[in-house]
Amino acid sequence: MEAVVKLTERILAGDQRAIARGISIVESESAEAAVLVSQLFSRAGKARVIGVTGAPGVGKSTLVDALATEWRREGFGVGIIAVDPTSPFSGGAILGDRIRMQAHAGDAGVYVRSMATRGHLGGLSHATGDAIVILDAAGKDVVLIETVGVGQGEIEIARTADTSIVVTVPGAGDDIQALKAGIMEIGDIFVVNKSDRDGADRTVADIEGMLALKAHEDVDWHPPVLKTQATTGDNVMELLRTVRRLEAKQEDSVDRRRERLRSRLYDILRRRFREHVESRTELMLAVDGAVERMIDSGLDPYTAAEEILARVLKESRDS
Amino acid sequence: MEAVVKLTERILAGDQRAIARGISIVESESAEAAVLVSQLFSRAGKARVIGVTGAPGVGKSTLVDALATEWRREGFGVGIIAVDPTSPFSGGAILGDRIRMQAHAGDAGVYVRSMATRGHLGGLSHATGDAIVILDAAGKDVVLIETVGVGQGEIEIARTADTSIVVTVPGAGDDIQALKAGIMEIGDIFVVNKSDRDGADRTVADIEGMLALKAHEDVDWHPPVLKTQATTGDNVMELLRTVRRLEAKQEDSVDRRRERLRSRLYDILRRRFREHVESRTELMLAVDGAVERMIDSGLDPYTAAEEILARVLKESRDS
Repeated sequence: MEAVVKLTERILAGDQRAIARGISIVESESAEAAVLVSQLFSRAGKARVIGVTGAPGVGKSTLVDALATEWRREGFGVGIIAVDPTSPFSGGAILGDRIRMQAHAGDAGVYVRSMATRGHLGGLSHATGDAIVILDAAGKDVVLIETVGVGQGEIEIARTADTSIVVTVPGAGDDIQALKAGIMEIGDIFVVNKSDRDGADRTVADIEGMLALKAHEDVDWHPPVLKTQATTGDNVMELLRTVRRLEAKQEDSVDRRRERLRSRLYDILRRRFREHVESRTELMLAVDGAVERMIDSGLDPYTAAEEILARVLKESRDS
Repeated sequence: MEAVVKLTERILAGDQRAIARGISIVESESAEAAVLVSQLFSRAGKARVIGVTGAPGVGKSTLVDALATEWRREGFGVGIIAVDPTSPFSGGAILGDRIRMQAHAGDAGVYVRSMATRGHLGGLSHATGDAIVILDAAGKDVVLIETVGVGQGEIEIARTADTSIVVTVPGAGDDIQALKAGIMEIGDIFVVNKSDRDGADRTVADIEGMLALKAHEDVDWHPPVLKTQATTGDNVMELLRTVRRLEAKQEDSVDRRRERLRSRLYDILRRRFREHVESRTELMLAVDGAVERMIDSGLDPYTAAEEILARVLKESRDS
């Protein structure tokens, strides 16, 4: 634990290697992770969290790097987390980090990290939330979170952001389908990247058409659709300005933060509840027994869950 | 509740409209859902659950329909669930169902249904699990689950299947990336569909190369990579034979089913725990209070979760 106290101090001082160590700890989901985040939490809450979501190949990383460069130019500290569902055996995440770090080589103001699922579902959004706290407490002004795909876990991660940017490319018919099929709701800003390609205006019109169908909950913010070329930097400044316009609007709203903290609390609470169950031998025996009865005598999972919950509450009553 | 008993009987008799009503109930996640599934559970457990996962546009639906047609030809009852993260406003799911039902028009032995997220994250895999129980209890011999994308929620759904088929198309460089990036582990069988296109053999080799890198946990089953043309039916029979070969191997293994039931039980238990918390005014006040302290005085979510859990257990002790 003394090691964690020391690490906390180094993270608060913005030490890159300490940040790296801290993120590895939260990825491991060990008991140390809870101690570390508890210590850093009160020092976090200042960073702006920007989510950037889109299918593989749309140029998300290039766009994120271009945004990071602009923010760095103005002196802001930037953290980048690339959420990568790569399995541990591919090693792709590590290679990607090396390539990307070179783009910001020698700049201690940018920290880039890929985070991958490690077989444990649900763990990724948890670890990402903790990594944001670390980067925030380390003094990063902006934390960019890159996510691929349209799965539920990804949407959950995107929801932790203050601002969500959804990226696509011209003529990506299937991508538009995918957009329609999930991330449409979370987008605060839409970007058609690689806008030099044929059909960019058509894609912009398609997205605007879909947005028009949707009654956006926030009457003050109709999500804009921007064209960019991340490789040349074209219109990246306009995207940055748009992010800031939204930021200014959100400034006085504490609701989004409250909602985020509440879902974070429930997330940890559910996990602690499971740990509680798994730490009691008699409860684990009850779970094992219920599973066997589900197999042997058709006990249904709802009744089984009811039994286990009653037992957890009774067990604490008896202790 | 009497209505549910009646519905249960009709579902057990295989009535299509009763199945439809039952799935709508589990989608709504009402109290009725738990009663319905409890009643049907002991009558389920016989159906073979096949997951088919792949990016939009690879021809998943056509492949699933081709497989369904083959199974039907042999007299098996087939259920198809297309898991579609479409938001409610698009209405795409309903339209898709109508088109697909026409392919099996007049055949009461096939039931097709799309299931969409309704804003509630995590709810989809829950509802899909319940829908499988309904189709299984209704006497379907095979339940095909179609999922898009590589998100965590999707992988979770794919894991509920006995057999997971991962579909891609020739030369889909980005798709291969996506494969690499998540669904590689869950694939028992890989399919390169639209195999008349250029580069099919190359794509097969790429996938085989990736599989070779991976030490598959099951030494008895090295995932095969098949080429198909779902539109012409080319090699669909070979795919069916491969599914059966795997089925024969798995027959004597109860471990996969046990794992699945255990995760199902935890899933429902976590939800019931949250419902328990939300049903007690004093616990809800404690959650609200914790969130405010997180905002105002930097209380961290781990400490907050610890407090709430202690309170839940104490509250049951005092009652």
